Amino acid sequence: MEDNKFSETHRAVYYEGDKSGRVTMAMLINMIILVSTDQSDHLGLTEKHLSDLGFGWVITQYLIDVERMPHIDEKLTLTTEAVSYNRFFCYRDFWVHDEEGNECARVHAVLVLMDHETRKMVRVLPEVIEPFGAEYTRRIERLENPVGISDEDTVDFKKSYDVRFFDIDPNQHVNNSRYFDWLLDSLTEEFLMSHNLKHMNIKYEKEIHYGHKIDSIVVIKNEGLLTHHQIKIGDDVYCEADCEWTER
Amino acid sequence: MEDNKFSETHRAVYYEGDKSGRVTMAMLINMIILVSTDQSDHLGLTEKHLSDLGFGWVITQYLIDVERMPHIDEKLTLTTEAVSYNRFFCYRDFWVHDEEGNECARVHAVLVLMDHETRKMVRVLPEVIEPFGAEYTRRIERLENPVGISDEDTVDFKKSYDVRFFDIDPNQHVNNSRYFDWLLDSLTEEFLMSHNLKHMNIKYEKEIHYGHKIDSIVVIKNEGLLTHHQIKIGDDVYCEADCEWTER
Repeated sequence: MEDNKFSETHRAVYYEGDKSGRVTMAMLINMIILVSTDQSDHLGLTEKHLSDLGFGWVITQYLIDVERMPHIDEKLTLTTEAVSYNRFFCYRDFWVHDEEGNECARVHAVLVLMDHETRKMVRVLPEVIEPFGAEYTRRIERLENPVGISDEDTVDFKKSYDVRFFDIDPNQHVNNSRYFDWLLDSLTEEFLMSHNLKHMNIKYEKEIHYGHKIDSIVVIKNEGLLTHHQIKIGDDVYCEADCEWTER
Repeated sequence: MEDNKFSETHRAVYYEGDKSGRVTMAMLINMIILVSTDQSDHLGLTEKHLSDLGFGWVITQYLIDVERMPHIDEKLTLTTEAVSYNRFFCYRDFWVHDEEGNECARVHAVLVLMDHETRKMVRVLPEVIEPFGAEYTRRIERLENPVGISDEDTVDFKKSYDVRFFDIDPNQHVNNSRYFDWLLDSLTEEFLMSHNLKHMNIKYEKEIHYGHKIDSIVVIKNEGLLTHHQIKIGDDVYCEADCEWTER
């Protein structure tokens, strides 16, 4: 089977790290999107080309596994591969390796093609995915949804955030890494400094826009080793996530 | 005269840009701090070394001139030089050049040495500044203070921001680039998309900490070509800035 992986190196710089000196989840996501954008540019399938056709890629779900969060000043290798697609979904994998070749993190992402005018999902155009070496499959992956938060749950933390001008990236959307800051900042400093994130399942439900005010809600379970998250505007859920943690 | 400049290249990546595809002011500041940190590491005068001595550098003022804000995907050259110091202040210059060698921006910064225990400014230790090639001078620069906002001014915009966990950087402080997001986000999208920032004078007055809730206040003057900013907590001013703009 052909190797359709695309890699580049990336130095994690100090402003990509948090107080503990580790790369933030938001920046890890920014890095992997960077490598996939670079792969697209390399193949001539730029964001602009897609936008001129009237479409854009939208990420609907990430499954993230963290072996160890890289430290700032590490020289990382970012790798991506568009693995497969069916009529509506594309599946892309990402890996972050350290200089010794150890896997720090891997991410499985689900993408759909969105029509810029209708803001609705459309059928995948083979011509914008096949050059990546992705294989067509009739199979639709049955990924678990995040557990979410029900009315019976006791909310442990809730914080509100205004979507800022600088949350919008050059692709004209709220940068999807921003959700990680909203989701995780709603936990306490004490929690974040004493836990390592091992696994995260995040699903984007609705588009958030500049000027929105969102609530980030957390329920802590399993003695702090599991957290359920929602981003809501009023009663509407815009994003859900589950996080599995270990003690640091 | 010896050339004590230190340079490195930096690719501006998409998550360092705003909606217009230009590098954000916050990221420009992050980049220049990166090159000065790299110079410190190169000389063995790391942040950790200074911290072990009980001290840390604190920026008190930036004078920023922007010729043109770089676009994402430009390969920039970041340059810094510790120019001079007196008993209490160090003066450092920064330049951002594009691939053709044109100057995109230059920054003049005033730094003081802070005692980690007392959180107070101390006399500059020659041994932590002379290796950079900085010259001792008796002269204290008389830099203009930002004009600020007086009770007679009509406030045009005011927004509040909670200081987040991810605003704290690996040096354990609110990353000083975050102030730029707070200061500028309080302007409207329409303003930010129709103006270029040409000059900024920003002065940090008091330390902001995790958990603080700050107000970012703006007064617009001179038909929108001049803005005066304050970051306040209650009635106390934590930061002041003036911005000069041109129409885009």
